[in-house]
Amino acid sequence: MRLATGDWATADSAAKATGVGKAWLVGAGPGRADLITVRGLRALQAAHTVIYDRLVGRELLDEARPDAELIFAGKRPDHHTISQDEINRLLVERVLAGQQVVRLKGGDPFVFGRGGEEALALAEAGLPFEIVPGVSSALAVPAYAGVPVTHRNIATSFAVITGHEAAHKADSQTDWEALARIPTLVVLMGVGQIASIAQALIAAGRDGQTPAIAISQGTTGQQRSVRAPLVALPAAIDVARLPAPAVIVIGAVAALHDQLDWFVPDGTSVGLVEHG
Amino acid sequence: MRLATGDWATADSAAKATGVGKAWLVGAGPGRADLITVRGLRALQAAHTVIYDRLVGRELLDEARPDAELIFAGKRPDHHTISQDEINRLLVERVLAGQQVVRLKGGDPFVFGRGGEEALALAEAGLPFEIVPGVSSALAVPAYAGVPVTHRNIATSFAVITGHEAAHKADSQTDWEALARIPTLVVLMGVGQIASIAQALIAAGRDGQTPAIAISQGTTGQQRSVRAPLVALPAAIDVARLPAPAVIVIGAVAALHDQLDWFVPDGTSVGLVEHG
Repeated sequence: MRLATGDWATADSAAKATGVGKAWLVGAGPGRADLITVRGLRALQAAHTVIYDRLVGRELLDEARPDAELIFAGKRPDHHTISQDEINRLLVERVLAGQQVVRLKGGDPFVFGRGGEEALALAEAGLPFEIVPGVSSALAVPAYAGVPVTHRNIATSFAVITGHEAAHKADSQTDWEALARIPTLVVLMGVGQIASIAQALIAAGRDGQTPAIAISQGTTGQQRSVRAPLVALPAAIDVARLPAPAVIVIGAVAALHDQLDWFVPDGTSVGLVEHG
Repeated sequence: MRLATGDWATADSAAKATGVGKAWLVGAGPGRADLITVRGLRALQAAHTVIYDRLVGRELLDEARPDAELIFAGKRPDHHTISQDEINRLLVERVLAGQQVVRLKGGDPFVFGRGGEEALALAEAGLPFEIVPGVSSALAVPAYAGVPVTHRNIATSFAVITGHEAAHKADSQTDWEALARIPTLVVLMGVGQIASIAQALIAAGRDGQTPAIAISQGTTGQQRSVRAPLVALPAAIDVARLPAPAVIVIGAVAALHDQLDWFVPDGTSVGLVEHG
């Protein structure tokens, strides 16, 4: 592909002229390595420093320059390895030092990824940055299980939330009554909270018989899914011992899985970086 | 990138063994050619037939094999060039004939793209198909204008609709009261209907002073945007004569554009295929 091949040379010569580098907030996509964008891959291949998250395809890190520094900034369920403030500081420091810095984030950098905060830190420091959008897990993982988030005459809108919301109901901004009325609801990182999410949606008026599906390790060789009506999904996830990360889809479109489940995982590679 | 390079050879030898080809429903991304995925580009480069939509990057078509047949299936605002039934039939016919067929769709194939219908046609014919997710305009176009659809303490969920919904209010499934309560609302293809959309949302309780932005030709060299409070957005779009296609974002995150607007369009290339 010819397009935009000049960008990296331009970035490097700008660094030489000004002494300042550039940060690239790159979406790594949903897990499968070749679902990164061409632009994102090129930025990764040109970077001096790569700061990467937990849910990033293993093979992607092999694409970095041999002399690139790879820094794991993933958050584990129990504790934070590097705080968000430290990540922001690291980005600013490296760009000030003249480096091309790739912040490689699972999915899309501006969807539940705190990419907005990282961009603000760079903007406030007056440093150049670019957002390289990625394929969001919220859309791609359902697609890999044969579930389109929209479908003619079935779902003409969709909404996306994270499961973390359900854990802090008291101080939550989440409006379950509104979410219960959107045709397709996609829940990211919701396996741990699915019981309270299902309860909240049904209490808000959603039919317990609404088709639902939970898809674990989506797009990777370990993909597995569980289909059940909303009311029965928490128990079905428990029985199947479905591991995180998982994407949950609630709505009539989830039933299309039964006809459109096209992906046959090979079971050989997890594809996600579990730790540094 | 080493990953998955065997897939295309496998597809070709499967075609030789069974006489049947395969369909790839590929997301072309939001307009800028290098925002296609690596996997999508490889499928495109291997295809015998490419059936493409209007909102597909021009440069992408140059990536097809010299002997590939390129078929324009885009829909113009006034009339349909090829009906959806004809597209479905074409996919089935070509795959039955042993071809690798790429259906290249703007954005993501399973987001408002009728990709679900195409997949169902292939599934009902018992033919192999694969979904190659793409970067959705609903997320990437806002990102290119410095607007994250989610942001900590500002927006913990988002919803996506199309403007076409507003045009058919009487028989519409659209629940404006629910949509008015979601922190971030993204409207695709909404420039023509923005007046009735804004009116419906405000009537449903959304504050007219909610920050909003309309982004035209997003991610291309012709990107332009208009920022205004929701109540004033329709007039602002009129005054700016903002051309379609545009993505509209309604919610507090739209104001982050004022700090994060990083993209400088070069103005030289439109990047979208306007007609066949």
